Amino acid sequence: MEIKVIKDIMGANEQIAQKNRQLFDRHKVFVVNVMASPGAGKTSLILETIRRLKGKVKVGVVEGDISSSLDAEAISKEDVPVVQINTGGECHLDANMTSTALGSLPLEDIELLLIENVGNLVCPAEFKLGEDRRVLVSSTPEGDDKPFKYPLMFHEADVVLINKIDLLPYLKFDVDAFAKTIKGINQKAKIFPLSCTTGEGVDQWVDWLLGQVRG
Amino acid sequence: MEIKVIKDIMGANEQIAQKNRQLFDRHKVFVVNVMASPGAGKTSLILETIRRLKGKVKVGVVEGDISSSLDAEAISKEDVPVVQINTGGECHLDANMTSTALGSLPLEDIELLLIENVGNLVCPAEFKLGEDRRVLVSSTPEGDDKPFKYPLMFHEADVVLINKIDLLPYLKFDVDAFAKTIKGINQKAKIFPLSCTTGEGVDQWVDWLLGQVRG
Repeated sequence: MEIKVIKDIMGANEQIAQKNRQLFDRHKVFVVNVMASPGAGKTSLILETIRRLKGKVKVGVVEGDISSSLDAEAISKEDVPVVQINTGGECHLDANMTSTALGSLPLEDIELLLIENVGNLVCPAEFKLGEDRRVLVSSTPEGDDKPFKYPLMFHEADVVLINKIDLLPYLKFDVDAFAKTIKGINQKAKIFPLSCTTGEGVDQWVDWLLGQVRG
Repeated sequence: MEIKVIKDIMGANEQIAQKNRQLFDRHKVFVVNVMASPGAGKTSLILETIRRLKGKVKVGVVEGDISSSLDAEAISKEDVPVVQINTGGECHLDANMTSTALGSLPLEDIELLLIENVGNLVCPAEFKLGEDRRVLVSSTPEGDDKPFKYPLMFHEADVVLINKIDLLPYLKFDVDAFAKTIKGINQKAKIFPLSCTTGEGVDQWVDWLLGQVRG
């Protein structure tokens, strides 16, 4: 009996990600992989984004969590197609989990698919899902030193959203220094400060996203 | 040629954790594994704890990060022995990394060793390091739904610190509901609300810790 050893788990993931990509292309779906620490505001960001895109773009959502379906339940109230992936312990989504979830979504009715990854600043950055853009939701209470500690995540992001700017008066967080550090790691990253609680800055992010979807 | 396959990576970790444990016992070192999301306040908690234990307990620190030595530099100003582990991409500390770090610490001069894990609510909960107690630093801006999403971490913690209570007036966070959810997952967990910024509640945590070290 031959024992098969998967030598290149990243290579295997990449292959499935490419298949997801082909499926997205066939259905003309623009796909955004939303990553962040636990509690940085991924779900709130997705909810605010859906509300602002209503009547403009047909949105679908994949919710990734270790367990629970709390987020998918919140999203489903917005009357958009949503599917929950429970990773059952895995600290990130991968292309194969994403592929499985896609079978439960009406891709022909979706123009923009928002995928909420597991809350984690490390491993999600290593696993492509077949997405067009990678969005990192960073939040002010986490501190402005995070790019030094989780450089891959900040390097891989196309966009960094600085969420919870409504809390700035109560924190030591230097937005300019933070943006400068990000640019040092990743010059191409777009940066949007915003607050999903007050709504400040959210329109700018959504306008940019809309331009990407239509571009 | 025989190809050796490590079938049970957790079993291998457990064995090394037991060796660490024997080393700690020999030197009478009480060891605390400090875990949290990125930016929940692990380093601030360790700094505040060291300051309050000065003259009472001899403290040493292991700092775990993907990269950078920012935290170890901050700790070293407190004049305690500290060693930085850079995991180089790994999203958690394991017993072997810890074992390697111990060679750089004067264990005979340490009564309490605080190990700061990588910021991550998932994988660190799966890897024992040989510690006596596991402390989870949770923070109010992360939201009070986190135990539902990261149940293993809340289940494995001996203590849950609810940090950043100074921000409660500006957040939707129900401390009582949060504590009740934790107790539902983990009845034995001690819970201390506190703020490393204002100092509120920190003494209660440090008094409890001191009791554990001397116990």
